[in-house]
This record gives sequence, structure tokens and C-alpha cells, in this order.
Amino acid sequence: MQKMQSLSDITGFAEITPTAPIAAERHGGRAKCLQRLIRLAMPVPPTVALDFDAVHALSKGDMPDLDAMLAFFGPDPLLSVRPSSEDPDWGGPGAILNIGMNDALHARLTESHGEPAANALYLRFIQSYAVHVARADPDEFEAGGAPTAEALAHALAAYEDETDEPFPQDVRDQLGEVLRSMARAWEGTTARLLREAKGAPADAGLGLVVQKMALGVGNGISGSGVIQFVSGQSGRPEIRGRYMCQAQGRDALTAKDGAGDILYLKQDPRGRSIETVLPEVWSDLMRYGDLARKRLREEMQIEFTVENEELFILDAVRVPRSPRANLRIAVALANDGIISQDEAVLRVPPHSLSELLHSQVDPAGKRDIVGSGIAASPGAATGKIVFTARAAQAMAAQDEPCVLVRRETTPEDIRGMHAAKAVLTERGGVTSHAAVIARGLGVPCVVGASDLTLDLKAGTLTTPDGRVFREGDRITIDGSHGKVIAGSARMLAPALGDNFRTLLAWADAARDIGVRANADTPEDARKAQMFEAEGIGLCRTEHMFFAEDRLLAMREMIFADDAVDRRSILDRIGPMLRRDFVELFGIMKGRPVTIRLFDLPLHEFLPQNREGLRELAEALDLPLSDVTRRAEALTEFNPMLGMRGVRLGLTVPEIYDTQARAIFEAVVEVAREGATVVPEIMIPLVSAKREVEIVKARVDAVAAAVRIERGVDFDYRLGVMVETPRAALRAGEIAPHSAFLSFGTNDLTQMTYGLSRDDAGRFMSQYVAQGVYDEDPFHVLDADGVGELLMLGAERGRRTNPGITLSICGEHGGNPESIAFCRDARFDYVSCSPFRVPVARLAAAHLAIAERGAERPPRMY
Amino acid sequence: MQKMQSLSDITGFAEITPTAPIAAERHGGRAKCLQRLIRLAMPVPPTVALDFDAVHALSKGDMPDLDAMLAFFGPDPLLSVRPSSEDPDWGGPGAILNIGMNDALHARLTESHGEPAANALYLRFIQSYAVHVARADPDEFEAGGAPTAEALAHALAAYEDETDEPFPQDVRDQLGEVLRSMARAWEGTTARLLREAKGAPADAGLGLVVQKMALGVGNGISGSGVIQFVSGQSGRPEIRGRYMCQAQGRDALTAKDGAGDILYLKQDPRGRSIETVLPEVWSDLMRYGDLARKRLREEMQIEFTVENEELFILDAVRVPRSPRANLRIAVALANDGIISQDEAVLRVPPHSLSELLHSQVDPAGKRDIVGSGIAASPGAATGKIVFTARAAQAMAAQDEPCVLVRRETTPEDIRGMHAAKAVLTERGGVTSHAAVIARGLGVPCVVGASDLTLDLKAGTLTTPDGRVFREGDRITIDGSHGKVIAGSARMLAPALGDNFRTLLAWADAARDIGVRANADTPEDARKAQMFEAEGIGLCRTEHMFFAEDRLLAMREMIFADDAVDRRSILDRIGPMLRRDFVELFGIMKGRPVTIRLFDLPLHEFLPQNREGLRELAEALDLPLSDVTRRAEALTEFNPMLGMRGVRLGLTVPEIYDTQARAIFEAVVEVAREGATVVPEIMIPLVSAKREVEIVKARVDAVAAAVRIERGVDFDYRLGVMVETPRAALRAGEIAPHSAFLSFGTNDLTQMTYGLSRDDAGRFMSQYVAQGVYDEDPFHVLDADGVGELLMLGAERGRRTNPGITLSICGEHGGNPESIAFCRDARFDYVSCSPFRVPVARLAAAHLAIAERGAERPPRMY
Repeated sequence: MQKMQSLSDITGFAEITPTAPIAAERHGGRAKCLQRLIRLAMPVPPTVALDFDAVHALSKGDMPDLDAMLAFFGPDPLLSVRPSSEDPDWGGPGAILNIGMNDALHARLTESHGEPAANALYLRFIQSYAVHVARADPDEFEAGGAPTAEALAHALAAYEDETDEPFPQDVRDQLGEVLRSMARAWEGTTARLLREAKGAPADAGLGLVVQKMALGVGNGISGSGVIQFVSGQSGRPEIRGRYMCQAQGRDALTAKDGAGDILYLKQDPRGRSIETVLPEVWSDLMRYGDLARKRLREEMQIEFTVENEELFILDAVRVPRSPRANLRIAVALANDGIISQDEAVLRVPPHSLSELLHSQVDPAGKRDIVGSGIAASPGAATGKIVFTARAAQAMAAQDEPCVLVRRETTPEDIRGMHAAKAVLTERGGVTSHAAVIARGLGVPCVVGASDLTLDLKAGTLTTPDGRVFREGDRITIDGSHGKVIAGSARMLAPALGDNFRTLLAWADAARDIGVRANADTPEDARKAQMFEAEGIGLCRTEHMFFAEDRLLAMREMIFADDAVDRRSILDRIGPMLRRDFVELFGIMKGRPVTIRLFDLPLHEFLPQNREGLRELAEALDLPLSDVTRRAEALTEFNPMLGMRGVRLGLTVPEIYDTQARAIFEAVVEVAREGATVVPEIMIPLVSAKREVEIVKARVDAVAAAVRIERGVDFDYRLGVMVETPRAALRAGEIAPHSAFLSFGTNDLTQMTYGLSRDDAGRFMSQYVAQGVYDEDPFHVLDADGVGELLMLGAERGRRTNPGITLSICGEHGGNPESIAFCRDARFDYVSCSPFRVPVARLAAAHLAIAERGAERPPRMY
Repeated sequence: MQKMQSLSDITGFAEITPTAPIAAERHGGRAKCLQRLIRLAMPVPPTVALDFDAVHALSKGDMPDLDAMLAFFGPDPLLSVRPSSEDPDWGGPGAILNIGMNDALHARLTESHGEPAANALYLRFIQSYAVHVARADPDEFEAGGAPTAEALAHALAAYEDETDEPFPQDVRDQLGEVLRSMARAWEGTTARLLREAKGAPADAGLGLVVQKMALGVGNGISGSGVIQFVSGQSGRPEIRGRYMCQAQGRDALTAKDGAGDILYLKQDPRGRSIETVLPEVWSDLMRYGDLARKRLREEMQIEFTVENEELFILDAVRVPRSPRANLRIAVALANDGIISQDEAVLRVPPHSLSELLHSQVDPAGKRDIVGSGIAASPGAATGKIVFTARAAQAMAAQDEPCVLVRRETTPEDIRGMHAAKAVLTERGGVTSHAAVIARGLGVPCVVGASDLTLDLKAGTLTTPDGRVFREGDRITIDGSHGKVIAGSARMLAPALGDNFRTLLAWADAARDIGVRANADTPEDARKAQMFEAEGIGLCRTEHMFFAEDRLLAMREMIFADDAVDRRSILDRIGPMLRRDFVELFGIMKGRPVTIRLFDLPLHEFLPQNREGLRELAEALDLPLSDVTRRAEALTEFNPMLGMRGVRLGLTVPEIYDTQARAIFEAVVEVAREGATVVPEIMIPLVSAKREVEIVKARVDAVAAAVRIERGVDFDYRLGVMVETPRAALRAGEIAPHSAFLSFGTNDLTQMTYGLSRDDAGRFMSQYVAQGVYDEDPFHVLDADGVGELLMLGAERGRRTNPGITLSICGEHGGNPESIAFCRDARFDYVSCSPFRVPVARLAAAHLAIAERGAERPPRMY
């Protein structure tokens, strides 16, 4: 028996009724949403939906059964057509209203509704038909003038002029052309690329919604408006919207403020508002708003028309909202029992949290943008320009906010970066030193601002158009958008309130992978605690040697003649390091701290210029030539691949000895105060098992010595930072000597690609643009290449040491894609910069909830 | 039934008879060789062998049945004991003669052989027993004086003095102590480490050989000598050796030349020789020599003693020989049908060829060594010191040999390296630029001579003890041994004769993996042809852009504003490149040439100092500040991981276009002369499939254009240099777009370890010494890490493109270990520097022959 065909199979469209088989993935979100409104018994005018297939067929010239459609709408209909894609973000052609207007109907409406109303309806239709359907010159059909008879005559003449045809009078022709043009617009290359950029699949379909017009113009009280019940900016409950008399569609939203025909929804200073003029309409709108929230489980913006005092609901969409509003709305819906906590968690995109953690430049404010670069660390700040770390510290000492501007930053600049409110560098990419450290500090940062010219000698920063900024001039850095702004800019404050904490608590309840923070300093550690990281996954220790009271000693050590001298110099630094660790352990209150042993090449500790070398020679009482020679001898061709990490650790073992002793003595010290700390000591840049064995033997010996000296027992865990491809490949023989493996994906990416993150900026954008790399691999973990090494390393490590702890640290740690990868690989935790911790916690929760298969209700259009 | 025990199981020793179960791997090579001599019916005195177990037991205090042994030798025997390890190179304790001498026997021999003879025998025994067995002070027992009664009395007294015991008189005691001391010497730590360094296993055993003495002293014509029938230096047939009257053991070899008691073997200016004095002994010796060569299939050095005109053969060992002699002997034995060609091939160690390809410092000559470094490129040469590449070229233009001394070399130095006879650098390791290029050029080179102080400003090279060398001073570089020698040194010429070619032809017949050469220049290519490489596996093209007539154009291109300008500048270089390729193809006569596209970062083309930048600014007619800024902007943090290779190729595509056009036009040009060339174009530094697709599309387009323009068809192959870990991991998706994959193991090693070859020198020696790395991975392919990537890449590449050609190029290509690896992985060929080609051909043959399981006869002791 042949299957019965539904009406829409034959006619290419379906009436939207409470029970019609309308589906977002076949008819688009708008059609589905309209059906929901109809189910809630809202007064929606008769509407039909064309599904994706019908629209696709249309673009190929295959028209639906227009006669049947027109028959449905009745004689002489006035219609609107609106797009209905699966996801509203994917765009689509604009709505076209008043289809069906022609000379005859115009004459009739002139009689029934008055000439201005009839003119307005006809003019609007001619204008949009001419521009969007007939593709005539838009300049000839500018909207907005008064709907006079002359204007109408002019439009009709202009149409004929442009198209060599009179304006079509047959509604069937009009509707057919409107539908066809909208279908074709969707298939255009530009539209496809634009929506693909927003994540649409290549074959994303378009539905269309044809609705009988509620006019909004005429003799009685008529007009159109839009209403919503929360603030799109803050998410707070608040009735917002506009209504305009004698208007259609969303005219009210674009009309000038204070224009005579605007009606306020509620309080009106002039005493006229819908609430007072149309109390029944008002009470219906209130009821529909509440209904939508409870039943559509979402804050909706409702588009309505009043025709002769009768209310029609034309459409409804999700309230457009800022990230902070979105979070508040989700929490409120869950608190009201409308959605579950899991669903509230799912409704907040992890990336959207970044904006909540920092001050932002108010997009509505004035901005004098003078340069742009890479948005390296989110947030915004204003301050006076300084060109050196020292100047930044001096400014900060006077409580004067400053922006540190450098060609690029080095570890020597860290204190200056701490002191600055924002950082701007001429060079570097998203993983340059400046970018990584700034993200860690939560300091807004723009890097690679190569259109600005920095002249450090002259002390000037020059814009492409020749404006010159000097030290002390005020600028604003918008690290969220990579902009440099002259002077100050209006700011929005960060939003770390109760809603934020509530949502993150729900996320923590859901997630099943740990999140730690990369934190080097006490300030970082406090941030890690504030963002509720479960510990420190990467504490870099180099900065401890750069502190003013230690740098000279480090330099002395570099010039020391033998191990005995080196040790005696390092013995002076040891107690200072111990104090650092005591402070760190104190802040972390027993949460785990993974301390990476010294990783930097020694030449980073030497002055970079002649002047500095001269000063150093004086300080060390050595001939300048000796100092210069030693500095030159330490220079490396490829510092990234040179004598650093465990290589330095084995060659100058006194450094690791000193660090280990400081760590253990700190453990003993906090133990005296009743706190138990099990420090995790991590060896960097390992490429061979034997490196681990040798360091382990030495660290064990130091631990034994401290235990005996202090008469206190303590535990510690020794592990390996896997950041060379070889360490990943040989994880099987490294793991038995390691309590944990932490994958340093920054360096691992550099080595797997053979690509320095500091030098990649020169071609990375071109590479991504050409599709050579799908994404900057320093930004999004390369699952194919680097990822395979991670999987191999994890699997081999686990095979020889089933209890081993696995994690990643480094920039990728806070990335939702990387977290998904690590979850799939059953890693124990990810570690990322403190400001990424909330993002990571939320992303991890999303993954866990998604995996539990919680049915996610369709997103409102 | 209990198994019958052989005599040796009970007694711990076995008489060496023609049929005794003597085996080299149980009794040592000397015992086995003596058995062979006995089988050939040579007059070997009665001999017994102690096997490894017996000697090992001895070292633990478990004495063999000495009574049985002494019973075998008869009453009042005089005996010798000699070591017999499995491989003579493993060393062992020295021989001890005249065991059995005591006061009684001395008295009897004084009667029968005269007092001097009796004194000499006794004295020699006392001296070696005291020093080697009783461990007395050697100064008290110096050998060499006249064997007077006083000397003997002194020795006996001294013995008692030193040991508090009289000299042992019982032969049983004497023999037992000698055997025990030799067994213990073998077990000593130093001895074990020394032999392990020579490749001995940890449990290598020692056998001992106890032989009845033929005295060589006495009343009749008596004496001892050594004879061989080829030159140990040249390998040419030639009777060499010495004989000394009234002497024992190898005394003849150490006696002063022209001493009265030396007898020449043959022609004697004084008319006295064995040939004339003892014609029968002479004819026996001739016969035994011939017999040994034919039946032992080796050139032997025979140790003999004449006692009262009777000839005894005491021992025989392989003639000690230079590599060139070894090669000549192997070829001669095969030519004479004594051994097979395969065996001749196996008898020449591949590494030993290096010495034949270069001049060598004569180890016997005087050498004033003033410094040392890493032996980076073998061979030796003398010349005047120059400190710049330019000076080297100027010297070469005057035909004055020179040695280029640099801190380190860069591509700009290449012409200077060509011009120089040898290269010396203060910095760098075995794979530094200087080392790699020098090996390619076959120029002797010492790098990392850090004990020498180079002051380029002063133009001096200072030795650790303060000697100063200036430009124009003559020095000699010994690149085989890493030595710097003041002035000239006596040299040995290279040995590339018929024997060399014959042996390599036999090797080629045996091997089953291809060998190509890395050759960049016509000179290199000629060398490749001379060494019969099967093609060029890696032709680096950067040098073509450094030639004087192109460098300025390259610099202009770097400063060009856009692609059009760049192209027009490169169009000027194109024809010059074409000429280079025409010449290269001409030399290679249709053999394949793999051309690697441009790989270098652009900053390598800019001057390194302010003076050069000023000149450049002038030449380009640009402000110095512009030139300086651009040069600075091109500077990279880690050039190895920066914008080079295909990254530059995609960013500045005009370079590859120009190269491709030059290659194809050259193919067309040589085709006109009837030669068919199928060039292989190789893309460097690939890390993603898309890089290959993009370059392939452009190169295909250039090929199509050239085909149309010239109306000539031609083929070419496009392939990928796999030198990033990611390219190896993703070989499966890269291979379908590639005709070949060639693994660049230098860079692949750098990236797998995260280790710059230029910077590794600072700690590599310490790493290898501590056993962190078994070997310098730039020297010996890291089979575990890098090797796994090679295997993965090969396997994945072959899976998606079964016909793909696989190879390695780079420094490892010429290494026997790497060749074995590549053979196992079924690679098609290896490519190495021209001077390594013969080594590689021979090594490959060894592997193939070994795999065919050809029984390799035991090596003579």
C-alpha cells in the first residue's frame, strides 16, 4: 500500500497548527517557535512554513503550489515572508512585508484605512521588492520619507524605470518572486561563507515562514511593537521594548527616540502608554510573557501588532543578550525551577565567561582607536604609557595606573607587567611571553601591534597616521578586541557576583575532570584560590631567581669557577626560595602544588646590552672582557632547543639541589604550623629516561638529608613535564620513575611542528587563512599530530605505571577543545592560567553533562 | 649411564692436538690458531690450552691439575704462558717465558748452553715473575743489561728484598702463581673496562696457552724471530720481519737497529741472513707462510725460534695492518681464489674506508700539536691561516693553500670553505654547519676547538700555553683525530686505487639498498659520480642564491614591496639557476637528482653587522634606518623553528616558482641534447598535508606553463622531506600527494629531542659520559625515539601510497647503524655526503651478506 502523502509533500508547504509536524531541523527555528506560540494559544495570524527541501527546490526553480497557498490565505491577502534557519545566528535574508499590495488593493485600503496607511503599506512593499527581489538600485528606493501620493507615484515610476517592467500586480507573481529571491540569497556564496564562519554546516537549510499580515496601520488604534521582560545587558527582570503607532514590523525599534508616534510600553512621561491606552492588550502581553518564560523555558522578545485594538503575536525570539545577562537568566530560570541546574550550566558557553572576569570597553561608548594587534589577554584598562618595566614599577608605587609598552617582553619585565594595568607589545603572537604572562596575571594585553612604530630611544609610539604618543600619555588597551585606544574609554565593570559563583558550583557538581591553575607567584596563587582551582598544576620557578635580591647572586653563580663556588652562592638564595614556597603553600592551604624545576637558559639572566654588562662587570669585580666573553659563550642559536630544563639541571646540578632543599624545608616549616603539603616536583624538558633517574636520585638524596636534619618526615611526588616528542614516545620507560606526567603542550606543539611560537606570528595568520592549518596550533590543540603524541604518551605511561597521574599544563589547558581531548584520554586534570579556570570548569561540566546524554531542549530562535 | 668426562674436564686443560676439541669461543683465538698450525704439521712445541672456565675458576683460587700438566711436559720443563682471548683486540696479560728456571736448572744449563745463555734465561724469568706475578717494584728489575753473574745475583737478592721470600724454586709453584696472576689480571676492573671499550662483552673469557719453550739461546745457531709476507702499511707482498741470535720471544722486534746480534731475514748488506746461514730454515719458513695464507686464508705473522739450527713455530697472529693494507690483502686473497668476494667485502670494516679517502697525518712523523677539538671531517691538510672567507678565496686565487679559521661558519662562508684546504672553528659540534659542509666538501675539519682563543679583531689565534698564530702562519688540521698542529706535518696520500674500486664493485654486487649522495654543487656532484653514488638524494639549493651575482638580487627581493616586484627581481636570478641545474644534470648523466626547494630563513641573506647593512643600504638606495628595521624585523628567536622551508615557500611563493621554472627549463635544455632527466623536487619542513597540496598545485602550474612555452613534454616527481615529527605522524595523509618521502634525520632529531644541534655541544659530551644518551643522537640515529617516527612515517606513508619511494638523507645516511635501520624498514635508499658514499656502499653490502647467512670464517688471532 502506498504511503499517504501529507499536504506539504504535495504543495511544498504546511500550515502551522498545534499538531502539524513542524521541526526546527526541517522547517527552521522560527517556524518551530511560531508553532510553540500557537500551542500556547497566542493570537498568531495564519501562517504556513516551507521546509528546507522546498526552499532548496525553489532555488533550483521548482516552485511550491502557490495556488494552494493563496487559497489557504483567502482572497486578496496581505502576506509577510520571514526566514527560518535552524540557528538564528546563521543569518538569512530579511523579512518582506505586505506582499499582495497592488494598485487595486491600494485603492480599497485607501477607502477602508485612509490614504496615508494605504500609501505606507504599498510604499514599503515596493521599496523592499524593488531592492531585494528585483535587485534595483537601492538609492532610488530609500525608505523613511512621508508616505505621500507623490512618493508612491515616484516609487512606481522608478521601479518601471529600473526594471523596464511595471510593478507586478498579481499576488501570485509577487509571492513567487519573493520566495525565489529569498531561496537564492541563501544559496549565494557570500551568505554561505558567512554562516559557515559561524559554524553552520555546508548544507545548512533555510525554511521560510509565510504569514498573513496584521496591518498595524489604519483607522483604529493600530501599531506594532516589541516587548521583553528582562534587560538584555544585565539580565535583570525589567520590562523593555517599544511600540509605535501606525507602524509595521520592527519600525518602533529603529524610529528616532521621542518621535511623536512612539508609545512607551509602561510609564510614559507624557502619560501615554500601552498600559494606560490599551489595558487589555497590556495584560495579554504580560500573560504571554510569563507563559513564554515558563513554557518555552526562555526569556523571549515578542513582536506584536495591534490592529484596531486587537492584539496579534507575529513572532518571538530569544532575548538578545550580553554574556552577563545570559548567565543571570540561566541561573534565574534554574532557581525558579523552570530548567534544571545542568541545563543552566549548558546554557552558558564557557568562552562567554572571559568577558565577565574583566572590565570591558563599553561598546556603546566613544572610542578613538589608534592601533590594533592581537587580542592576547581579555579585558580593558587605561593608564599612562611607560616604556620600561622599571618605569611601570615607579608609576605603580605612586598608585598611577600605567600601560607597559615594549617591543616584546622577557622574564626581566615580569615585575613591570605586574605593576602595569595593561601591556602592549609591538611583536609576538598569541603565545608570546607577553601574552602568556599577561593572561596568567589577568592583565589586558595586545601583542603584535605592528602597525604602531615603537622608538625606544626617542621614547615615542607612533600611529600609522603619524600621531605620536610619549611616556605619560594616556591610552586604553582593549585586550578583548585587540585595540589600542587614545585616552580613556567608557568601561563596563567585571561581573563576578553570586550568579557567577552559583553557576560555577553547579558546573563543579557536574564535571568529572580536575581543573588546576598555572600560578607562579603568590598573587597568581591567590587568583587560583579565588577562581577555586583544585591546586596549582604548573608553578614556574624562574621568576624567583629574577627578584632583585637574587638576580645578582644568579649572575655571580654563572661566573663562578666551580661547583663548590656555585653551591655557596646558591646557598644564599636558598632561604629566599624557601620563604617563597612557604608563602605559596600557605595560600594554597594544602591543595596540591606542582613545582617545575628551573627551566630557563642561563643567558636569560645576563644583561642584554653593553651598558648592563659593564655594570655587571663592576658589580662582580671582573674585567669587562671576561664578562662579555662569558655572555657571548652562553648565547644560543636556538634557545628553545638549547641548554635549558633538565639539561641545565644535570650540567649545573646545584640549582636543582637548591630548589629541592628550599621546597622540602618549606614543607617542614608549614608542617610545624599543622599544614600537610605533598609537593609535586616536575622535571622540565626531559627527553630520556636517564635524565629522570639522575634527577630523582639527587632529589631523593636532598629529601633524605632534610628529613634527617629536621627530624621531620614528609612525602613528595616527582614527575616529568612531557614537552619533547621523544618524552612522549618513550613515556613507557619514563613512567616507572614518575608519579605523574604533565604534558606541556606549548613546547610539545613547537617541537612537533618544528615551529617556534615566538616566530610563528610572521606567517601564522596567512597559514590559517589559506587553510594550511585549520587553527593556530598554539591556540587550539592539534588533535591529529600533537594529540597523537599525547595519546601515545598517556597510553604508554599508564601501561608501565597504571597509577600514574596524567594532566596537561600550558596554554591549551583552558581550552574547551583540549579539555574534551583530555577527558577522552582519561587525564586526571588540566591546568591553565587562573583566569581560564572558570572557563575550564564550565567547559568540563558541559562535556560531562553532554556525555550523560541529558536531553538538551532545542534552543529558542 | 654417566657421560664420560674428557681429560680436560678433570684436569682443567687440554693438549692441543690436531683433533682436540679446541674452540676459539672456549679456549680463545690463540689456542685455536695454534691448533691450526699443528694441523698444518708445523713444528709447534708441545702445548696445552686452559679454557675460559678453567681460567675463571683459577681467578677464584681453583687451580687446575698442575701435576698432570707438568707430567705432560716431562721432567724439568721450561715453559711459556701466553694469553688467548676470543678476540686479540681485547688485550690480556703479557706472555711469561722460561717458567721452570731455578738454581738447579741454571747450573745444568750453564754446563750445556754456556753461562751467558743460562743467565739470560734465568734473568728474564726472574724479572717478569717479580714484576707481573709477585708485583714487586719494576725499577728494581729493569731488563736489558748484560746477563752477567752479578746481574743474576742482584736480581735474586732484589727479589728476596722486595718479597721477603727467596725466589721460588719449585716449577709447580712457579707455574701455579703465573697462571693465577694472569687469570686475576684479566678479571681486574681496569682491564675489563678497557676491553669493553673495544666491544668485548662483560663476561668475555680468557684462555691461557702453556707451551714448552724452544730456547733460542745456547751453543748452536739459536735465536728467535718474526716473519710476515706482506707490508702491514701497504698490504703489498714483501717479506718483512727480524731475527735475533741468542734471543727469545719478540726480542728481535724491540732490539736496536744494526745491533750486532740482529740477523736480517733475507738480503743482508753484511752478507749474513737466515736465507744464507740457515737455508733449510728459510725454505721451511717460506713454505709455512704460503701454507698459512692458503689454509688459514689470512696473511699471518709467524713467531719462530731456532734452537741449535732446528726451527720451531711458536705462534702466529694476523699481520697487524693499516686500513689500506687490509683492503689490499682482502682483494688479493679473493683474487687468488682463497676467499670469496663476499668474504673480502666482509673483511673490510666500512668505517676503515674513511682513512683511505683522505690524506692523513703520518702517525710516525713529528707533530707539534697546539690544540684539539672535535674530529668533524676526516683527512688532514696544511695551509696558511685565514680568518675570513674572502681571504680564503684570495689565497686560493694565488694557489696558496690556506686553512679557514672561524668562530663558526654560516652559509656566507661556503665559498671560503670551498677555497680552503681545511677548516677550523672555535665553536660547534659534529653536526654544526662547518662540520656538515666540510664533510660534504671532503675538506678536513676540526670544530669546537674551544681551548684555542680566537680574537678576530686582533687577528690572532692563541693556544692555551700562550703561543700566538696570525694570518699567514702555517698550520695543519688533522680532521681524523681532531688535532691542530703547528706548521706542516708528514702526510700519507689517499688510497683510491684499483683495489678500492674492485672491492666496492663486489660490495655493489652484494648490497640491496640504494646509496645516493648529498651534493649541492657541481664539485659535489662530480665527487658523487667519482664515488659512484646512484644519484643525488639531497641537493640543497640555498648556496645558489648566495653566489656573488645573486646575493644582491636576493637582498633586493627581501626589500621588495610586493609580489610583482619580487617576481621581477627573481626573474633575473632564474636563468642563472637554470644554468646551475643544466650543469648538475649534465654531470649526473641521467641519474636521479633530488632537489630540495629553498629552505633558509631570509635573514641569513642579510649582512650581520652595521657596516654590511650600511653598504647594503647604499647598494639598494634605501635609508639605513629602513634597512636596519627590516633586518631587525626578520630576526628570529629560534631560526631553526622559524619561517623557513615550505613556510617561506607559501609566504613568498615566487621563490619556489622561480626554482621550479629553472629546474624545468634545465630539463628541457638537457633534453635537447638527448638526455632524459626526471628531476625530483623536494619540499622542506612540511608539517601539514595542505602545504604539500598548495606547493604541488603551483609547481604543476609552472610545469604546465614551461611545457606549453617550450613545446616539450617532461616528467618530474614531487616529494616531501620529512623532518618534523608531525610530518612523520601525518605521513598517511601526506603520502598520497608525494612521489617520495625522504626523512631528514638531522632536523627530525633536533625536533624529537627538542635539541638544537648547534647548541647541543655545550652539554652533549657530558650527557654521553653520564650515559644520559647512549650516543650523540646527531651522530648515531636514535633508534628508539627518532627511529620510531621513521618507522611510523614509513609504514603510514606506504599504507596510503604503496609505490612511494622512501629514503633518508642527512648526516645519518652514511652511518652503518642507520643503513641497517633503513634496510630493516625496507627503505629504497640512503643519501649521505659524497665522502661517505663508499662507506655506505660497503656497510650496505655487509648487511646484505650477513643476512644471506654467509658463514663467516673465524677471524685469525
